[in-house]
Amino acid sequence: MRKWIAIAGLLGMAGQLSAQTKPLMGFTESASAKQTAIEKQFDGMLKASNVDEYLKTMSARPHHIGSPGGKAVADYILNQFKSWGYDASIETFMVLFPTPKERVLEMTDPVKYKAILAEPALKEDPTSNQQSEQLPIYNAWSADGDVTGELVFVNYGVPADYEQLERLGIDVKGKIVIAKYGRSWRGIKPKVAQEHGAIGCIIYSDPKDDGYYQGDVYPKGAFKNEWGAQRGSVMDMPIYPGDPLTPNIGATADAKRLDRLEATNLLKIPVLPISYHDAQPLLKSLEGPVAPEAWRGALPFTYHIGPGKTKVHLKLSFSWDLKPAYDVIAKIKGAELPDEWVMRGNHHDGWVNGAGDPLSGLAAMMEEARAVGELVKSGWKPRRTIVYAAWDGEEPGLLGSTEWVEQHAKELQEKLVVYINSDGNGRGYLGAEGSHALEPFMNEVAADVKDPQTGISVLDRKIDRQILDAASTSAKKELLNKKTINIGALGSGSDYSPFIQHLGIPSFNLGFGGEDPGGEYHSIYDSYHDYAVFKDPGFRYGVTLAQLAGRTTMRMADANLLPFDFKALYKTINGYAGEVVALAADMREATLVENQIIKEKRYAYGADQTKNEAAPAIKDEVPYLNFAALQNAMSEFEKATKHLGELLSSGKLSDAQKNDVNKKLYQAEQQLLTEKGLPRRGWYRHSIYAPGFYTGYGVKTLPGIREALEQRNWKEAQEQADVDAGVIKNFAGYLEGIASGGR
Amino acid sequence: MRKWIAIAGLLGMAGQLSAQTKPLMGFTESASAKQTAIEKQFDGMLKASNVDEYLKTMSARPHHIGSPGGKAVADYILNQFKSWGYDASIETFMVLFPTPKERVLEMTDPVKYKAILAEPALKEDPTSNQQSEQLPIYNAWSADGDVTGELVFVNYGVPADYEQLERLGIDVKGKIVIAKYGRSWRGIKPKVAQEHGAIGCIIYSDPKDDGYYQGDVYPKGAFKNEWGAQRGSVMDMPIYPGDPLTPNIGATADAKRLDRLEATNLLKIPVLPISYHDAQPLLKSLEGPVAPEAWRGALPFTYHIGPGKTKVHLKLSFSWDLKPAYDVIAKIKGAELPDEWVMRGNHHDGWVNGAGDPLSGLAAMMEEARAVGELVKSGWKPRRTIVYAAWDGEEPGLLGSTEWVEQHAKELQEKLVVYINSDGNGRGYLGAEGSHALEPFMNEVAADVKDPQTGISVLDRKIDRQILDAASTSAKKELLNKKTINIGALGSGSDYSPFIQHLGIPSFNLGFGGEDPGGEYHSIYDSYHDYAVFKDPGFRYGVTLAQLAGRTTMRMADANLLPFDFKALYKTINGYAGEVVALAADMREATLVENQIIKEKRYAYGADQTKNEAAPAIKDEVPYLNFAALQNAMSEFEKATKHLGELLSSGKLSDAQKNDVNKKLYQAEQQLLTEKGLPRRGWYRHSIYAPGFYTGYGVKTLPGIREALEQRNWKEAQEQADVDAGVIKNFAGYLEGIASGGR
Repeated sequence: MRKWIAIAGLLGMAGQLSAQTKPLMGFTESASAKQTAIEKQFDGMLKASNVDEYLKTMSARPHHIGSPGGKAVADYILNQFKSWGYDASIETFMVLFPTPKERVLEMTDPVKYKAILAEPALKEDPTSNQQSEQLPIYNAWSADGDVTGELVFVNYGVPADYEQLERLGIDVKGKIVIAKYGRSWRGIKPKVAQEHGAIGCIIYSDPKDDGYYQGDVYPKGAFKNEWGAQRGSVMDMPIYPGDPLTPNIGATADAKRLDRLEATNLLKIPVLPISYHDAQPLLKSLEGPVAPEAWRGALPFTYHIGPGKTKVHLKLSFSWDLKPAYDVIAKIKGAELPDEWVMRGNHHDGWVNGAGDPLSGLAAMMEEARAVGELVKSGWKPRRTIVYAAWDGEEPGLLGSTEWVEQHAKELQEKLVVYINSDGNGRGYLGAEGSHALEPFMNEVAADVKDPQTGISVLDRKIDRQILDAASTSAKKELLNKKTINIGALGSGSDYSPFIQHLGIPSFNLGFGGEDPGGEYHSIYDSYHDYAVFKDPGFRYGVTLAQLAGRTTMRMADANLLPFDFKALYKTINGYAGEVVALAADMREATLVENQIIKEKRYAYGADQTKNEAAPAIKDEVPYLNFAALQNAMSEFEKATKHLGELLSSGKLSDAQKNDVNKKLYQAEQQLLTEKGLPRRGWYRHSIYAPGFYTGYGVKTLPGIREALEQRNWKEAQEQADVDAGVIKNFAGYLEGIASGGR
Repeated sequence: MRKWIAIAGLLGMAGQLSAQTKPLMGFTESASAKQTAIEKQFDGMLKASNVDEYLKTMSARPHHIGSPGGKAVADYILNQFKSWGYDASIETFMVLFPTPKERVLEMTDPVKYKAILAEPALKEDPTSNQQSEQLPIYNAWSADGDVTGELVFVNYGVPADYEQLERLGIDVKGKIVIAKYGRSWRGIKPKVAQEHGAIGCIIYSDPKDDGYYQGDVYPKGAFKNEWGAQRGSVMDMPIYPGDPLTPNIGATADAKRLDRLEATNLLKIPVLPISYHDAQPLLKSLEGPVAPEAWRGALPFTYHIGPGKTKVHLKLSFSWDLKPAYDVIAKIKGAELPDEWVMRGNHHDGWVNGAGDPLSGLAAMMEEARAVGELVKSGWKPRRTIVYAAWDGEEPGLLGSTEWVEQHAKELQEKLVVYINSDGNGRGYLGAEGSHALEPFMNEVAADVKDPQTGISVLDRKIDRQILDAASTSAKKELLNKKTINIGALGSGSDYSPFIQHLGIPSFNLGFGGEDPGGEYHSIYDSYHDYAVFKDPGFRYGVTLAQLAGRTTMRMADANLLPFDFKALYKTINGYAGEVVALAADMREATLVENQIIKEKRYAYGADQTKNEAAPAIKDEVPYLNFAALQNAMSEFEKATKHLGELLSSGKLSDAQKNDVNKKLYQAEQQLLTEKGLPRRGWYRHSIYAPGFYTGYGVKTLPGIREALEQRNWKEAQEQADVDAGVIKNFAGYLEGIASGGR
């Protein structure tokens, strides 16, 4: 009670201040002042030392899904939330999770080399010696396999690299490929290799990308030493994430399961990640053409592509067991609108000790949750229900979150206002991605959070960074006049994916970084020692993330009128529409010109004759596509946002009307789902955002149209343009319905 | 006589052909047919085996200036020319040429390392073991010195790198710098280091630039092995080239000489080039900030900048002796216009065996000269005098050519129609730079020479290469419709420099390359073995260069009306004028924006706080400059080219009038010289072309204006704009004079 009095005292002051400032989005003037005061108190409660303690405790032992350490972490989180006054419990799913039984990689010709496939313990890093509990270096969802073949270096292993190989007359069919980590999500590399007939895939970390080329190596510096290797999932997540055996439904103990070989998101070939220590002898022995400049790494020899006398043997087998995924779910019931939920989540499983990924984000979320719990104890009552989630099994493929979302889909589409994700955190600049109807809201939040190093807002600091990074004077000049940022679109790679892309729940993904590069990712060196020294010394950005995500959570929980701005969404989608129209036109022109160059033999004559590089193949011409329906739908969308904006800013809505409108607002994004989902991957239903089929984590906006164009499937591009036109027209009608219903 | 009949036979055919084609530029229809037939015969005489033989003979031993091998090569060339019927002689100058007495480079702290400074003999390369005759690894014109200091890595050692160092708070004063070869002419590196107070300079070849990163190393491949190092001159050639003791006058035995310490183009600090084997321990031991990404090379460790505990000791002393430079000059007297000369040259001195540089170009020139001699023997008589030159002492600083040009300046400005240079040759694409009034002519010549690999013209192949290299679809599309190329502007780095930049003689520099990269440049591995295997196997491009330069020489020698096209020159200079006007405007805008970014502390806030990088300093604003005089002069220039074009294409000039006009045409470029030359380097008098003060070889066009802008010297930029306006106005008047004189 004393604490509540303290808040009341602050309120008077905040009331005076707010007379001079604009109220928070979605708040009345008085509610805004109250909220601001709460936030001030909230800030005062956050302690870097707590972030440190949670992080140190949870990263003390390896804690991947299915491990004793993982169960211990889940229990720790559960108990912490309970101690902070939450209604907390663990929801368990039974999910497939393969772990290695046998891992052999050896070069058999021209010389023998047996890969070590292990990261040594370092005396500087006290948790690096827990070998008995560490998952070894492997890629989850590799197929079992025992293959021997000639080795071919395929650069980053993305489709464009195979086009280059084709021009060089190199076929990977029946061969084993070695690809560099980077440029695409790792799972794309074996997928594309398999599509091209490769029988095995090795992925290594080149020192150019996150080793000595970038900076001093661990433990002297943060970058990858010669032994470090990146574990990780190679599930074909762009088809669907979650337990491969239970697409679209929750993997409860008694769920109906597919046979593993039926799962369309699992590979048929073996895949193994290795360190550059292990990659070096293989790459060095390759013959064949010298790799193009863009393919070369930082190892001290000439990179060749192969194939040739270099042969490797790759033998992998796995235990394909069901493991329990422990999702910790903690709630504070809303005082006024208990059936509207604001949800905040971060996963808790790591590949090994996982200090940076994911615990740095989780520790910040826990400190945020503790302070929220404290506020509640001192009398503050959120209007809506706040739900915190610590997900298990994110690393192998968003297992815990996807199964939970699939299990509770109906309730979530009814109740969930927004899902706010984080997945690790670091030092530096704001990273904010999410639903663009909430872009102005996120700008407002970011303007109210101070960067701990410079003292300016994290929003302003982000703009300043963008100014320094801008390539041209005119771009810099434009940014100098900007007061806001554009938030990114959500692709995949973390637990927001099922919320936004499967259910159409408005979502955010938040974090800080950019001053904390390194090579620890998914290795045993992603440890407390590494994090405390190189990532966020003093855990100041842990507190900053708590401030940012806490404000986001509390404002969404308390808003009178939810701060959705569909004009911002219109502007963003209209930009995407402009991009796909331009993409079709650019591809048409480029195809014509490129075909002319080929037909006139300019490649044959102009090419370096010392290189055996064929001209590209003639490409089919790009027809004119009909984007009129899409463009007309966009016009209707624009009008609807205008009408809705008039209603929402009229100030004439009663509290009851506001409650009614709010529900329609937060459910609006569900109207952007398509009935059938994306072609060949119907789990992904959002018409605006999806992870790229050939980029993985990287987002594709208006994915149906854009990817059909990129794949030169003109018929499908037209179909998808029409599908999206229908979705957007319907969406415009939905917004008009809110606008007119409120009159 | 029989051969002449053969030509006559061909003439008939050529006459028929020419009825369907345009006559050659500057030739009447019948003269054109004759010329074309001569060229056909000329082509038939050229033998790759001769190119091979000359190259093998001359590269058999090291032959730098002042060496027994050099004298032997000069005598060989002299005797060959004599045997081919030329009036040939050697003209000797006495020039300063320093050679090493002592070379010591060692790291004293934190560990001892003594640099090896030697390239081992390779069993695959039979001339690599001639150690007793090889010049050791050194930079000519380094100062004598014995210095010890902390080491700082300065990237490529160009001015922008020192701006970066300043932002990092690193001062090289009193320190020794280590710079990478590349990006600028080597002499710029110690010059800029000296300007910043460094006491010594080491230049090394990073494997990223011409070592294993680029391809397999010698002798397996063409790139630099760990021992290879690049010799070369570090004279401040942008001040003046040639013997430092005799600027502006020929270095005859009794010429008046400066004291060496008075020479303004000599360094005060010691400089030494080293291999990456020797650089590696030094660079690896450096501390201080991690080098920015653009600074990093391909050695297998993290590049740091220093300074720190790494100390080096550099001790160098030289014999500063006068050496004879033997210029071989060979003439065929013109039958009709003996006092109009067409000159063709290539140097003969190499740093060691010099097979690629310069002998591959010289061998091609000799085969061309032999065939010309043959043609003369069989009855063809050039209208103008043809002069072949094989220059000595090009490598240390264009010694032989500059002294010869200075000695014969008056006669050359009277008689010399054009100077056609080459300096080595290789496999691949046409490289053509020169006076832009001869750009259409060079296009015509290049259209008539076949590429030996593809069978299309070297012109078309160059266009095809440009299409493949073009970055955008629109650029490719534009090039697809082009039938011509733009020739490059002449900077420096070879013997054309005194002709064009000091005397205003129209000049060309010709050669082939692009399919022959490697790391042999100025090392003992620039050998016959290397050349025959990696550069121009079969010596086919040697023949192609002979065809190209031979046609250029013979057409210029025989033309009725010299093929100068001042419209092309106008177009080119007008492009340059547009560039400098835009440069001033861009710098003005960039300065305003950049200063705003600094003043608003966006650097302070936006910068990575883990890096200790200060904001750049506020820059003085860029005033508006008055380019009106320059633009008005360009208008007059354009009109004059129109009037002159009307006269030249009228077909109304008598032969006597043509002879009169011709002399005015070839002397026109002399009108582009300024009275005082460029500021602070009056030896360079051409207002349009000069080597860059801070780029060395790299050309600066409209150098007076452009460099003043780049150095932010607004007063001088305005002065130079007015000087150039005067020159161009005067030039326009000169052209009008020809146009009206001919009426």
